[in-house]
Parts: sequence; C-alpha cells; structure tokens
Amino acid sequence: MQIAVLAGGVGGSRFVRGVRHAYPAARITVIVNTADDILLHGLHISPDLDTMMYSLGGAIDPERGWGRAEETWRVSGELAAYGVEPTWFGLGDLDLATHLVRTQMLDAGYPLSAVTQALCTRWLTDSDQLQLLPMSDDRVETHVVIDDPAAPSGLRAVHFQEYWVKLHAGPEARQVLQVGIDHSRPAPGVTDAITGADLILIAPSNPVVSIGPVLAVPGIRAAITGARAPVIGFAGIIGGAPVLGMAHRLLPAIGVGVDAASVGLHYGARGNGGVLDAWVVDDTDAGLLPRLDASGLTAVSTDLIMRDPSATGRFIQYGVKLATE
Amino acid sequence: MQIAVLAGGVGGSRFVRGVRHAYPAARITVIVNTADDILLHGLHISPDLDTMMYSLGGAIDPERGWGRAEETWRVSGELAAYGVEPTWFGLGDLDLATHLVRTQMLDAGYPLSAVTQALCTRWLTDSDQLQLLPMSDDRVETHVVIDDPAAPSGLRAVHFQEYWVKLHAGPEARQVLQVGIDHSRPAPGVTDAITGADLILIAPSNPVVSIGPVLAVPGIRAAITGARAPVIGFAGIIGGAPVLGMAHRLLPAIGVGVDAASVGLHYGARGNGGVLDAWVVDDTDAGLLPRLDASGLTAVSTDLIMRDPSATGRFIQYGVKLATE
Repeated sequence: MQIAVLAGGVGGSRFVRGVRHAYPAARITVIVNTADDILLHGLHISPDLDTMMYSLGGAIDPERGWGRAEETWRVSGELAAYGVEPTWFGLGDLDLATHLVRTQMLDAGYPLSAVTQALCTRWLTDSDQLQLLPMSDDRVETHVVIDDPAAPSGLRAVHFQEYWVKLHAGPEARQVLQVGIDHSRPAPGVTDAITGADLILIAPSNPVVSIGPVLAVPGIRAAITGARAPVIGFAGIIGGAPVLGMAHRLLPAIGVGVDAASVGLHYGARGNGGVLDAWVVDDTDAGLLPRLDASGLTAVSTDLIMRDPSATGRFIQYGVKLATE
Repeated sequence: MQIAVLAGGVGGSRFVRGVRHAYPAARITVIVNTADDILLHGLHISPDLDTMMYSLGGAIDPERGWGRAEETWRVSGELAAYGVEPTWFGLGDLDLATHLVRTQMLDAGYPLSAVTQALCTRWLTDSDQLQLLPMSDDRVETHVVIDDPAAPSGLRAVHFQEYWVKLHAGPEARQVLQVGIDHSRPAPGVTDAITGADLILIAPSNPVVSIGPVLAVPGIRAAITGARAPVIGFAGIIGGAPVLGMAHRLLPAIGVGVDAASVGLHYGARGNGGVLDAWVVDDTDAGLLPRLDASGLTAVSTDLIMRDPSATGRFIQYGVKLATE
C-alpha cells in the first residue's frame, strides 16, 4: 500500500506519525510545504521539512514541537552580541548544523529534494517505507501583507516567518502572497507519489500557508484531482479555532471562514472542482455536517485531537473507512 | 606615535599585547596574515584575524591560545553526526557566529578589511588606538606540497590548515605555495600604515606561513624597504626550534635553516635587499650574533619568552632602543 500525505510542519508531523502507526506496512511519501522556507544569516532554512524530519527521526523537542531536543542557542547568542539582525528567529546550534549542510549542498548545485534525501539518511532509517519530498525544488516564499501607515501604499509585505515568529500574527493580514509559486514545479517524485498512491491524505495543517502552497504548485492539484486513490482531508480547525498556529489570522485574508466547514468547502469536493473525497471534522463540529452534506462534500466527525500516534492513527483509519465504504 | 606590526595568529597576538603594554599611547596598526584563511562548510574562516581579534578583545581561550574562551562544539558535533567532512578543523559554536557574520558580509560584497572592521567594533573598543588590517582583501591560500605515492606526480598539495591541524605537520613539506599571492593587493590602509609609521615591528610569527605571505603581497615589501621608520624583527625560533607552531617543518622547504640567524638573514638587512634594521634573538642564541654581525645585520639578544604582556613589552622596548640608538 502506498500513501501520499500533504503536510506542513508541527501539526503535519504529528499527523504523519499517526499515519505510520495506522499503516505500519505502508510506503508513505510526505509532500511537505516549503513556502515558509527562509534565508537567514546566509543559511537556507526549511522549517517544515526539518520539523517533519526531526519529528519522524525521534529528535524533535517534545515541548516546543519544533527544533531539536536538548537544543542550545550559543551561535544565536553570539550573532545577537554582534548586533546581527534578525534576532527573533529561533536558530538552535544543533538545528544550525542542518542548515549549514543544506546551504552548502544547495550552493554546490544539488536541488532541495536531493538535499532532503541526503539529510534524511541520518534521520529516517526506514527510508524505503517513509520518504520526505519538498513540494518543489524551486524557491517559493509566503509573504503576508499588513498595514504600514509609514509606507506610501499604506501596506507592507513581511515574510511569513516574520509575521508569525516576530509579530505573533498580531497585525491583520490583508493578503497572503506565495512569491514564486506560479513558476514553481513539483519536486521530482511528487506527482508520481500522488498518481501512484492507494490513499491520499491531507493533514490538518494550516490551509493558507501549509496545504495552500502545496496545492498551488502548478501540477499538484491536477495530479490530485486525477488520482485513482481516495483523498481524505482532516480539519485543523476545531470549534472555530486552529488547534495549532495562526490559521484564524490568515483564513480571512483569503476569504475563508474560520470553521471546519468553510475550510472543507474551500478545499472542495472532487468532481466539483475540489480535491477531497471526504472531509473529517472534530466531534465538536458535528453541527457543521449538514451544511457540508448539503454542499455535496462527504463529511464525518470524530475525535481529531492528536494526543499521540495511536489516537491520531485511529481517527485516520476512521476517516479512510468512511471514504472508502 | 604610530606603530605598524606584521603578525600571524597565536604568537602574533601575544606580541601585539606586548606592543600595547610597551606603548600604551601609541596608535597601533596590525597587518595580519590571511594566507591561512580557509573555506569550510561554506564559511569563510580567517584564523589569524580571529585569534588576533579575540586575543586583543579579551575573549581568547587562554589555554589553547586560539578560539573563544568558554567555547562549545555543538554545531561541529552535529556536522560530524551528518557525516560531513572535514571533522579535523576545530569549529566552536561562538567562533562559528563570527564566521557566519564574515561570510554573509563577504557574500554581500564587502571586502575582508571592511568585514574585519565591522567585527572589531565589538572586540576592540579602543579602535582609534588599535586597528587590525588583513594583509589583503584578495583570497590567498597557503598550500603545502607533500609526498603522495598514490598520485601520478608522487606529490599532493594540501591546504596549510590540513597540513597543520589534520596532519600535525607530519609529512615532509616539499614546497610551500601561496596560491593567489602574485595577484593580491595590499588591503586599504596597509601601505599607508607602513609608510606613515614611526616604528615597524615584525612579530616572532612563522616566517614561512605568517610573515612570509604578508611580505609577499606585491607592494608591502616595497613599502617597508622605503619606509622612514626603523624596522625591528623578533625571532620566533629559539635554540633551533619554534616557540610555537611548525616553522621547523616548513623552513627547510624554502631553503632556510631552523635557527634564529638563518631566519634573520632570510628577512635580510634593509639596504641589502632585506627588510630589517635590527634583529632580536633570544639570549639562548647569543652565539649566533657574530654570524649576523658578519653578514651586516644589526642584531642583539635578550629574553624573548612572551610570558605576559609586560615581559613581552620589555623585550620589544629593548629591541627598539637597540635599533634607534
């Protein structure tokens, strides 16, 4: 059995651990968002790929849900002592080694997908069963447009990392831009993983800045709509708020309501211009099911809290059962 | 009073601390060897500049004589865990921040001299009294030619850092190459510091890989031979062995004997094609003075052990007195 998963970072990695638990014999390909990648201090940082890699490799910091366990911040402290900006991005020492290897390989001409594979040889020892692919080898960056009274236009675009990590998603998002997305191509293996899959899962990651960019890479959406496998999506919005992150601050900017029904309808039903065969919401949102049914999107509710891989695996199997019955 | 000092790293920085102690009111410009600079893990590393900067900034590790006090090696350990070569170069976490800043500034187009000045704003708070200049903004690398039976030529060139740090100067040096030196130019301020100096000092640094490259940058030797100030050199070879480092392994490759007289005569007397007005050797080598005198090089002996800035300052003043009497 082959499974393709579309995912972001923190929530996505918890979800994939659930997939692994539910389908221990499956070959899983995770197509990871790279639109929140950022260049800092000359280093190419891929937060979602790294979160996924560390998490599946058992090296993630369990408290933060990102970065390395037993991390230290010596280099960051020194950079700050030199007065080098920005200081708001959490750049741990162990993590920095990953960025050094990535940056040097990219500078040497290797595409991000090859770099990811090289890095994963250390972390994913069952690489024949689990593979991480960046959504694209091309540079794509999410920028958030916010108000800036000092600017001639009254607006300013900041990198998503700045919006989230530095500004804590405080300013109202007027627009979300995926710089470079129009000319990006799926990384090698991405469309094959989708068309060859027996099951396609969309993780409960941020619909705007995680799943959104993956679906917006030209070719990926078409691969999904044309795939033979069922496509099941899982809501990251529970009770009108994101379980993790800042989707509630960004969904309004793309005209989508902050509720599990609106996100499901934003993804849409296959055959109706969308990508989903089934949409799984939390029991808290069971009241939204009639609206989803009326709109022609097969939906069901269950307990979507990712307490651990076992609980996550259970709700994934439940969703799959629903969609394939 | 203006003093120009030619120097390498570990020994050179101890010497400059002595210069500062001896001439607390002087304006000191240190012209630092950059021929043992190396690119590792995509980082531009300038070992002699950093040793000088940390040492004069009070941040040097006092035991090793190079690198930062209270250093840690987290990033290095991770790079090794990724299987990234080389692992033999000591790249501390605090030190790495310096290399990140330097690399990013160089990549942004700043010359090494401007980068050095920027880094020194943190370390040398008395920058109007003490300034570090790289010998050149151009890339120069010392390579050591050693035997290699496996190579078609029977020879192999290794970067000086590999020869010293990895190979511990074990293999016989057949030749020492300064790659790029012929087309290098003195960094801005270097020749002005020499021609404007009231006193020019040559530190007891390695004659082959520290002072040698500085003198070999086209324009620097001519500036010294034409300077109005007296030029006093200090021997780093005592009793036929270097106080620090591996000069005894490299002097034979350039046809110079491993003794304080041979090194003095290698530098040579001004007016006789050389750069020295006076040469100071250790009392241990007082027996070499007649040979130096006979060769027309003014020489004297004193206690040249750099126990502390005060002792170092004393022998510097002694040498200067000798040369200016």
